[in-house]
Amino acid sequence: MVTMTEVQAIKGELLTLETMSTVEISTILQEAEQFANGKQWSPNTNLVVANLFFEPSTRTRYSFEVAEKLLGIHVLSFSEESSSVQKGESLLDTVKTFEAIGANALVIRHPENEYYKHIREELNIPIINGGDGSGHHPTQSLLDLLTIKQEFTSFKGLNVVIVGDLRHSRVARSNADVLKRLGAKVKIAGPKPWMAGFDSQYEHIDMDQAVAESDVVMLLRIQHERHEGTMQFTKEEYHQQFGLTIEREKHMKNEAIILHPAPVNRDVELASELVECERSRIFKQMKNGVSVRKAVIKRALSN
Amino acid sequence: MVTMTEVQAIKGELLTLETMSTVEISTILQEAEQFANGKQWSPNTNLVVANLFFEPSTRTRYSFEVAEKLLGIHVLSFSEESSSVQKGESLLDTVKTFEAIGANALVIRHPENEYYKHIREELNIPIINGGDGSGHHPTQSLLDLLTIKQEFTSFKGLNVVIVGDLRHSRVARSNADVLKRLGAKVKIAGPKPWMAGFDSQYEHIDMDQAVAESDVVMLLRIQHERHEGTMQFTKEEYHQQFGLTIEREKHMKNEAIILHPAPVNRDVELASELVECERSRIFKQMKNGVSVRKAVIKRALSN
Amino acid sequence: MVTMTEVQAIKGELLTLETMSTVEISTILQEAEQFANGKQWSPNTNLVVANLFFEPSTRTRYSFEVAEKLLGIHVLSFSEESSSVQKGESLLDTVKTFEAIGANALVIRHPENEYYKHIREELNIPIINGGDGSGHHPTQSLLDLLTIKQEFTSFKGLNVVIVGDLRHSRVARSNADVLKRLGAKVKIAGPKPWMAGFDSQYEHIDMDQAVAESDVVMLLRIQHERHEGTMQFTKEEYHQQFGLTIEREKHMKNEAIILHPAPVNRDVELASELVECERSRIFKQMKNGVSVRKAVIKRALSN
Repeated sequence: MVTMTEVQAIKGELLTLETMSTVEISTILQEAEQFANGKQWSPNTNLVVANLFFEPSTRTRYSFEVAEKLLGIHVLSFSEESSSVQKGESLLDTVKTFEAIGANALVIRHPENEYYKHIREELNIPIINGGDGSGHHPTQSLLDLLTIKQEFTSFKGLNVVIVGDLRHSRVARSNADVLKRLGAKVKIAGPKPWMAGFDSQYEHIDMDQAVAESDVVMLLRIQHERHEGTMQFTKEEYHQQFGLTIEREKHMKNEAIILHPAPVNRDVELASELVECERSRIFKQMKNGVSVRKAVIKRALSN
Repeated sequence: MVTMTEVQAIKGELLTLETMSTVEISTILQEAEQFANGKQWSPNTNLVVANLFFEPSTRTRYSFEVAEKLLGIHVLSFSEESSSVQKGESLLDTVKTFEAIGANALVIRHPENEYYKHIREELNIPIINGGDGSGHHPTQSLLDLLTIKQEFTSFKGLNVVIVGDLRHSRVARSNADVLKRLGAKVKIAGPKPWMAGFDSQYEHIDMDQAVAESDVVMLLRIQHERHEGTMQFTKEEYHQQFGLTIEREKHMKNEAIILHPAPVNRDVELASELVECERSRIFKQMKNGVSVRKAVIKRALSN
Repeated sequence: MVTMTEVQAIKGELLTLETMSTVEISTILQEAEQFANGKQWSPNTNLVVANLFFEPSTRTRYSFEVAEKLLGIHVLSFSEESSSVQKGESLLDTVKTFEAIGANALVIRHPENEYYKHIREELNIPIINGGDGSGHHPTQSLLDLLTIKQEFTSFKGLNVVIVGDLRHSRVARSNADVLKRLGAKVKIAGPKPWMAGFDSQYEHIDMDQAVAESDVVMLLRIQHERHEGTMQFTKEEYHQQFGLTIEREKHMKNEAIILHPAPVNRDVELASELVECERSRIFKQMKNGVSVRKAVIKRALSN
């Protein structure tokens, strides 16, 4: 296996934010913010992007598709079910096929962590990672960052708490890492065993402290499918101990906001009544997802 | 649950014809007829319609898609299989997602009757009902009406018989209701037990009378999947008693026409040889489906 | 059943190359070569092509879709899973529906041999065969031919060997037939029992002779799914006896090329290291697939 630094990166690829400089991240966010503010851009020629989804997805998949279509790009929409992958075709064969038939960039979601390591050195077109296993989900991170930036302009000195199922999250690690690099103060909250791999670097606080001191309460979705039989509390118990309850919301700082990648487990991570409350930026995040993806696709195609 | 009259209707939504005035229905039919006659129209800006199909469909789904594409609208095509609905996401979460990522209208088919009651008050964009359970299918009704209008110009005094599986039909009730309101004389034919809910309002006649006196013979598809084990006659017996046989067709009035929503159960509702006979408007109905959907989508997007 | 000569062919249909004159084939190849060299063409009006895939496919399906989109045509993309075919709708009903809602041509892949015989006389729009059972796959044949033409300009006197699973191939028969008609010398290689139906017309040679004398080594994919339990050798044994090994490649003629329809069974038909070697035209073939399909679609729509 080749590591990313051994291979010359293809211009415009986006695999993970962790290996990306803060300058580059800021450049993408700036462009995304311009798109959010109504910027129009289209390529001068007929371009094709293939969205290859080897896992079910609604939010990410259609967000990319809207971004691409609004940019005037031809979209190929591939999902595993109706494909030759059923004939035992490898991921490499599939991506090489899409390159050969004229795709100018690939958006890929795949259940395997770092699936891209096997294939990126064989391609001459950029991969945009739409989520790899329990690894990364850089456009989700970017839309979280854009939503914070729109609110507070700068990340410097912001208090951010990341709450919940960090261990199974595709965004917790890179959000924490990038926010820290951009100058924010990041803490974590949630059940101790779910903090594995984070608690040596980030201060673990309880939810009451979290709501009292944070500018951004970033809730994560509990990946129920990965806890099968091992959840040590009921949904109600989780909500009381680690959830953003109606009571706790009242103790949040004046300008503080709530983020959640959606779909929300209502009354678990977040009280159902708060999903669309004034502090909630959950639907703003989805909206921003389109602007972020426009920026990321423009970057991929501009090389 | 909120009833439709309690919520301020979103301009341009289309849920059922039953709550719609004849003036409004006539306006849609007029526009649809113009599209059928070659009218061109496109929105001035980039617009997006999401087609959300929670049940298999060919005719309705692709008819909407053609209409949208020919109007120059970006189409998102969603079916349940390859989506986050598999992760237990609710219908409400799904429609809110599509609104958030930029859909300007939603076309929805869903197996649950009146699925829209749960969601319409949460949305700021119009829903076009593409069929709800055994409830309604307003664009199918509209294309039936357009086909009759093209033939006879006016509905006043027309003799229409609706034949067959009325109880399980998504269009029988609203077709009967709207046709009556528009001035037609509506009767019904078919097995007695299948007339439940209709026989108090509409005269039940036998097929021989039906073909002799009707200007429009509107056959319905037998929903075999809903009669599992309870059909009290063979296909041949049904055809002889309630079908439009080759013999019966000869007794139809000179200008009378045959409608069927398709797909036809050949030699059951209709003799196979008659599917494309001179009186049959079955393929005309499908063609009209595109014009009707253009009109309905234009209406949804023009607010 | 009606034979093709009994029905007046619809202009622009493409079912099999075997009934097509060499003049017509050459005309398509010429147009395809122009597309490969950058030719631009779009229809003057809004046109719609429906791609109906009743079998999984990646390469063919998306190759057609790219071709259509780059030509500025509206694409309807249908696969069996999410359709009314689940309600028992017949192929005829499905294709008639797509004609009625406005498709100007149909691309069809179907598991049944000569599926088109049942339906073509009922349609007024051309069918482009995207593969029928174990029958034909004319656009695959055409892209093989285009790739050879680009290399050697003419087919006259060229030595071509077709290797491997001829019996189960959708292209072996028509490639052999058309190449012969165009003036090439065609031989065959591979396991004797797999040559059934070919060995009376084409000389069967061993792989060492094949590589020594051929200008074009056309490898076929082993259809493992059709050999379940009946393969009389291991993959290694097959590779040694009938595969293009690293050793054999060294004995190929200077300008000789390797073709394979992909996906390759690596180290079976072809040594993995040779998939992208200098002689390999495998990805060129895929690229040519788009140009060929542009030509075929233009032909279908120009009547």
